[in-house]
Amino acid sequence: MNKNDFAKTPPMGWNSYDYYDTTVNEEQVRANADFMAKKLKEYGWEYIVVDIEWYSNDAGTKRDKFQYIPFGDVEMDEYGRMQPAPRRFPSSVGGKGFRVLADYVHGLGLKFGIHIMRGIPRGAALNHLPIFGSSHTADEAADPSSICGWNPDMYGVRDNEAGQAYYDSIISMYADWGVDFIKCDDICDSWMYRDPLVFSGWHETRMIHKAIEKCGRPIVLSLSPGPAHIDKAWHYAQNANMWRITDDLWDNWKLVKEMFVRCEMWQEHVKTGCYPDCDMLPLGCLGKGFGHEWKCNLTKDEQRTMMTLWCMFRSPLMLGAELTKLDEWTLSLITDRTLLGMLAEGRRGRQLIRNEELAVWINEPENKSAVDNEANPDTYIAIFNLKDECRIIKTDLSEYGLKDGKVYTDEIGAHGVVLHTL
Amino acid sequence: MNKNDFAKTPPMGWNSYDYYDTTVNEEQVRANADFMAKKLKEYGWEYIVVDIEWYSNDAGTKRDKFQYIPFGDVEMDEYGRMQPAPRRFPSSVGGKGFRVLADYVHGLGLKFGIHIMRGIPRGAALNHLPIFGSSHTADEAADPSSICGWNPDMYGVRDNEAGQAYYDSIISMYADWGVDFIKCDDICDSWMYRDPLVFSGWHETRMIHKAIEKCGRPIVLSLSPGPAHIDKAWHYAQNANMWRITDDLWDNWKLVKEMFVRCEMWQEHVKTGCYPDCDMLPLGCLGKGFGHEWKCNLTKDEQRTMMTLWCMFRSPLMLGAELTKLDEWTLSLITDRTLLGMLAEGRRGRQLIRNEELAVWINEPENKSAVDNEANPDTYIAIFNLKDECRIIKTDLSEYGLKDGKVYTDEIGAHGVVLHTL
Amino acid sequence: MNKNDFAKTPPMGWNSYDYYDTTVNEEQVRANADFMAKKLKEYGWEYIVVDIEWYSNDAGTKRDKFQYIPFGDVEMDEYGRMQPAPRRFPSSVGGKGFRVLADYVHGLGLKFGIHIMRGIPRGAALNHLPIFGSSHTADEAADPSSICGWNPDMYGVRDNEAGQAYYDSIISMYADWGVDFIKCDDICDSWMYRDPLVFSGWHETRMIHKAIEKCGRPIVLSLSPGPAHIDKAWHYAQNANMWRITDDLWDNWKLVKEMFVRCEMWQEHVKTGCYPDCDMLPLGCLGKGFGHEWKCNLTKDEQRTMMTLWCMFRSPLMLGAELTKLDEWTLSLITDRTLLGMLAEGRRGRQLIRNEELAVWINEPENKSAVDNEANPDTYIAIFNLKDECRIIKTDLSEYGLKDGKVYTDEIGAHGVVLHTL
Amino acid sequence: MNKNDFAKTPPMGWNSYDYYDTTVNEEQVRANADFMAKKLKEYGWEYIVVDIEWYSNDAGTKRDKFQYIPFGDVEMDEYGRMQPAPRRFPSSVGGKGFRVLADYVHGLGLKFGIHIMRGIPRGAALNHLPIFGSSHTADEAADPSSICGWNPDMYGVRDNEAGQAYYDSIISMYADWGVDFIKCDDICDSWMYRDPLVFSGWHETRMIHKAIEKCGRPIVLSLSPGPAHIDKAWHYAQNANMWRITDDLWDNWKLVKEMFVRCEMWQEHVKTGCYPDCDMLPLGCLGKGFGHEWKCNLTKDEQRTMMTLWCMFRSPLMLGAELTKLDEWTLSLITDRTLLGMLAEGRRGRQLIRNEELAVWINEPENKSAVDNEANPDTYIAIFNLKDECRIIKTDLSEYGLKDGKVYTDEIGAHGVVLHTL
Repeated sequence: MNKNDFAKTPPMGWNSYDYYDTTVNEEQVRANADFMAKKLKEYGWEYIVVDIEWYSNDAGTKRDKFQYIPFGDVEMDEYGRMQPAPRRFPSSVGGKGFRVLADYVHGLGLKFGIHIMRGIPRGAALNHLPIFGSSHTADEAADPSSICGWNPDMYGVRDNEAGQAYYDSIISMYADWGVDFIKCDDICDSWMYRDPLVFSGWHETRMIHKAIEKCGRPIVLSLSPGPAHIDKAWHYAQNANMWRITDDLWDNWKLVKEMFVRCEMWQEHVKTGCYPDCDMLPLGCLGKGFGHEWKCNLTKDEQRTMMTLWCMFRSPLMLGAELTKLDEWTLSLITDRTLLGMLAEGRRGRQLIRNEELAVWINEPENKSAVDNEANPDTYIAIFNLKDECRIIKTDLSEYGLKDGKVYTDEIGAHGVVLHTL
Repeated sequence: MNKNDFAKTPPMGWNSYDYYDTTVNEEQVRANADFMAKKLKEYGWEYIVVDIEWYSNDAGTKRDKFQYIPFGDVEMDEYGRMQPAPRRFPSSVGGKGFRVLADYVHGLGLKFGIHIMRGIPRGAALNHLPIFGSSHTADEAADPSSICGWNPDMYGVRDNEAGQAYYDSIISMYADWGVDFIKCDDICDSWMYRDPLVFSGWHETRMIHKAIEKCGRPIVLSLSPGPAHIDKAWHYAQNANMWRITDDLWDNWKLVKEMFVRCEMWQEHVKTGCYPDCDMLPLGCLGKGFGHEWKCNLTKDEQRTMMTLWCMFRSPLMLGAELTKLDEWTLSLITDRTLLGMLAEGRRGRQLIRNEELAVWINEPENKSAVDNEANPDTYIAIFNLKDECRIIKTDLSEYGLKDGKVYTDEIGAHGVVLHTL
Repeated sequence: MNKNDFAKTPPMGWNSYDYYDTTVNEEQVRANADFMAKKLKEYGWEYIVVDIEWYSNDAGTKRDKFQYIPFGDVEMDEYGRMQPAPRRFPSSVGGKGFRVLADYVHGLGLKFGIHIMRGIPRGAALNHLPIFGSSHTADEAADPSSICGWNPDMYGVRDNEAGQAYYDSIISMYADWGVDFIKCDDICDSWMYRDPLVFSGWHETRMIHKAIEKCGRPIVLSLSPGPAHIDKAWHYAQNANMWRITDDLWDNWKLVKEMFVRCEMWQEHVKTGCYPDCDMLPLGCLGKGFGHEWKCNLTKDEQRTMMTLWCMFRSPLMLGAELTKLDEWTLSLITDRTLLGMLAEGRRGRQLIRNEELAVWINEPENKSAVDNEANPDTYIAIFNLKDECRIIKTDLSEYGLKDGKVYTDEIGAHGVVLHTL
Repeated sequence: MNKNDFAKTPPMGWNSYDYYDTTVNEEQVRANADFMAKKLKEYGWEYIVVDIEWYSNDAGTKRDKFQYIPFGDVEMDEYGRMQPAPRRFPSSVGGKGFRVLADYVHGLGLKFGIHIMRGIPRGAALNHLPIFGSSHTADEAADPSSICGWNPDMYGVRDNEAGQAYYDSIISMYADWGVDFIKCDDICDSWMYRDPLVFSGWHETRMIHKAIEKCGRPIVLSLSPGPAHIDKAWHYAQNANMWRITDDLWDNWKLVKEMFVRCEMWQEHVKTGCYPDCDMLPLGCLGKGFGHEWKCNLTKDEQRTMMTLWCMFRSPLMLGAELTKLDEWTLSLITDRTLLGMLAEGRRGRQLIRNEELAVWINEPENKSAVDNEANPDTYIAIFNLKDECRIIKTDLSEYGLKDGKVYTDEIGAHGVVLHTL
């Protein structure tokens, strides 16, 4: 098994977090999957991902004080493996985990993913629970001084036999359930830890990758949160399929604008099976689980800019919206075949220029670079206006070392974009 | 109650750590107390302190891998309060805690102290144990992201009502037991924490001080480990009686020499009831609980230098030696009435000079400073040779602004000291 | 000579900076000296200090771009010693330096001070100028990689014979001129330097102190800018008479309020001849040299709070106001005999409490502390209201360990203060 | 002009630094050029680079105290442009600069390069020298607070019109001289500066690039010292042809071994015209200018490993050896056509694995990657033994995602390498 074969193009899907926070349930997941199968699948959208704390029985009940309840009520089997909370995921009752829900999603022609926290449950370690399929116990695998800075559920896992046995035990269970995609959290960035060099997430990434190889099922591995460390690019590419290059992205222009800096930095690292990840698209209806529902705060120009940059760069695309509430305009944006076509295998994106006022990107077939080839309609040029007012922007491609210089004169709205074929 | 009245002079005593590590038992404590009562009490030595993890049933059983066993077997009551391990402290059986042992120590005319870790037991928090004397539970008091970097037993305590109730519950239990001295660990220095400014030990110090005031018993509060933060001197002085100005001190010249820098920095902060603490004196027999017993590795000159600096500076004095194995020379050093006399109320020490080669200190009555007064025999001058070879050192006191300049010419051994009366 | 005898009480004076920036001239200095002699001298005010770049011929001519003109026109003798700019200080013509002006100030019964930048002029080093009274040249003394982060005039001085010769040469010239006070800048705080440990200001402080001892004149040494490093308190006290514990203070409540934190931290370090310095009092008319004149922006309550804190703490007092424009109210504030009396020898100030809402300070005779003595009218209690609204504050002194508890109930304005005798 | 056309393959040449330090002269440069023309040119070696301080008249005269003499005697024209020191470079007399020497090198069929320090001479700024071809003066261009941490010759250049005029003035002079290659120092890494974000080298890089574009001559731009910042990869690639990914490399195995980490990190950034640079090859005779001549301290295995890694990775190759003293073995190493062939256009290198024990690299035609293609003899696999003893190493290529797995079993010396064609 070669992990780069698991995702020949950047994964596209839906994730429950932006709308549901920690509270999504089975019915809601099914509704979104139904929508995707019906309206989005034909455009390439395929992953349905259940995000953080699906194992929590009391998720959301103290939302005024905690997003993640300390020492909360979690569903765990006798081997210290988290299980879906039964009231939220009724089909899981009787030890069936996510099998029934995954089957349902598969039945729609889609793929099923889950979120996990790096580590082993704190309660498993304290109670010395046995690790399934091994003679080890959870206290041997857990590192009591490796904790997540923002979520209290887990201890980091040691780089030893017990630790590998634990990761093997959960990944093989997920494979049995039919999981196709794992978003592992608290594992990509060490910024919040005292000594980034001893951050236990680095070896845990390797251990999870190894467990996936062992399990026999091609499970896409996605790492969060960012910003990923650019000096660790090799490490991510060896072990994972995608990794977040940003902290959580929300519907805020400042954050979208910063992504141009991040994409500049990571553009050489987009490869088949290896995708720097710009994070979920906070489009449509958002935030119900956070306490109040809202509509994406980005202007249409900003939304198009976001979608265009993600596609030019070839980021994975994960929808944050509650799909059943999608308006027509947003639907049209996320089903734009021109933009989505840029994610195809054999293409690449790169930046031609970026300054405080504008950015220009090219997306082209890898084996037919505009540096050495005539202009062709399969090559796209996106011109982004980063200023806060509508402007007429003149772009002379001859300045960027392309064989065929062209000159464009575009009127582009504030934070907007114009797309040309070369 | 004014905490500055609890310790009118720097506390002097014995601490189990340097010899026993985590493993000391009741019999051993009694033997050391007996020795102190017989041989040391008359010189001012009075505290008998049981150091770290007296609540651990498996302390020392995995010493090749862990000093503090992760998720180990700890003795705890139904209110989440640690209790002495019954096999190690038989008199504690039946919920009596340290009461019997404290009584024994008191019966010898001595005082009794214990070590605690800042925080609330991890198991208490996970299991939502009730907090004695309140309607709160341990999970409300515990902060799941505040952990000790080197000991896995506790979570930090939140700055809320539940947290204060927890500290009140343990301190009043200690008062009931007859505890006279608490050495609280992981509370004085934040160097190992990501953001020293949010280190929860700062508010926990205040909460413990408040709990002591409430309990009605004058309990000396000692903070560890160091180095304490000099910019927090006011905070320590408001809440505690002593605080470590150094990381653990062992029998190593380099560490003793560094203490000259620390004493220089803290000399203005030695006040009645407020003692910057140079840490235990690693004299005599040491280290059995760490795996092998050894004799203090400092030369006699170095030992005398250490003892002299601690006394000139007026640090608390805590013996690390197993007392029952004390040799005559060491016994004479720690019963030197001239040195111990410097700790008396109304005296102060200060540095006259320090450079790479030597240090000179003066210890004098506070109200009769040599700056404004004639020489008098109650004033001491210590000249320390910091170089690695024996030297003849000429000291001209007139350079240091004293009213009566004197000139001394001393031959002083490597790392040695000569003491003069002015 | 013992530098602690140079300033038996905290120096009080006037400094040209807050009003004139780099531009003050002889006439203006004389006018302020005249005023001080006539109206302030009897209250203890005595120093007249000419602040930064008195050697600059083009000071202030490019104020829109630079406060300190890079590679500007400086007045320097053939030995690389800065001289007063002749057009600004006409009496200096003919190599007389500040002698005539100092004589004038002395004739009024006052003392004369100047500001210097740590280091040796860049031009002296580049041109290998000879160092007066030695066989060395300036390039040997100058360290080309030690520069001030904000002023381009100097290079730092090496810790070698040539460097000491340079400092000897300027200090003895200042002594000849009749200088009584040197404010040395860029020497107290290393925050802006790459590696604070190799900051050359530490050894330069020692070298300047040595040069003052050699010159035979008691010249008060004041170090700037702050914040001084509390862990270097011994270093400052050995070499200087006062050192800034804050960055530049201006007429802004936030900065005044922060001084409570700084005074708390430094209170144990106020000694005869050793004064942590809260910086100039930005009272009255300010800022003409900065481009526009303004009146102190602090409310009267805030001004009184500032003046009271400085006096309780026993900071040096340096007036920033243009004295000839002083209004009556400000004049009354700075001639308040009660407040100024707190600076007398044999007194000390200390904080009793500080929190977000209030601060309480005591100022008392050193040998008659209220901890051990009955209340007496020579002891002051200041209660500061740190909140943004007028409040009734009840203060129970028995909480602070004083022998005689008293209870006060005061109505205190926002940021205001009430002073009681005990 | 497109700077990526200036160097279609990684530049190969000789640099005077490793042997001559600051002292090389014209005769020595010619001798090395002669040797290169005769023995090395046919293998692709072509640049002759005069390294640091060719403008210094007193270079090397105080070598016991300074590598770079502070406030030393530099040769400069009336426009503040450094000129070759006439005694060292006689052909430069009369304002001819390096023109004659460059002509000589060109006459041999080689190319000529020089080293420069980022910035403008300190003396030019202090004396307000005019900037050639502009109405500006040097003080306007110079930033008095931007200095090099280790060389005292220059001030950093401001990002203004005067600054650009200065860079234009020197680069056009170099173009006139016939310079083909500029190694600009103190411009690639900001590690030694207080605030890397305000490091003036970032904008100076851009300004120098712009000056080169203006001058009309294709001058290769090389940036030093490293380590370059991986997060600034785009910045380097936009403005320069090569940039050092390491601090100075010397003949020390530890440094060579570290290069595997650096090459791993930078491998995606090797492009036509854009070369991460592993630094000079410290082979043969070295160090005379540093005080004593020595032979390369690397073992033959280590030298071959170095040469192989540099070639697989496609680093620029700059010889540090005094060429006229080259021994036969070293000559054979640097004329190995197999290794040098890897630098050809259209090829790329990448790492297959690296751990503590070994590293495996592949170098292959870009358009015929072994991932998708059958094995072919134009593809090389290098297996490096990173351990300190000779070992038999089994390598199974099928583990690395290549289409044709092969298994090699090699005996490889300590720190040695074996090269296979696939």
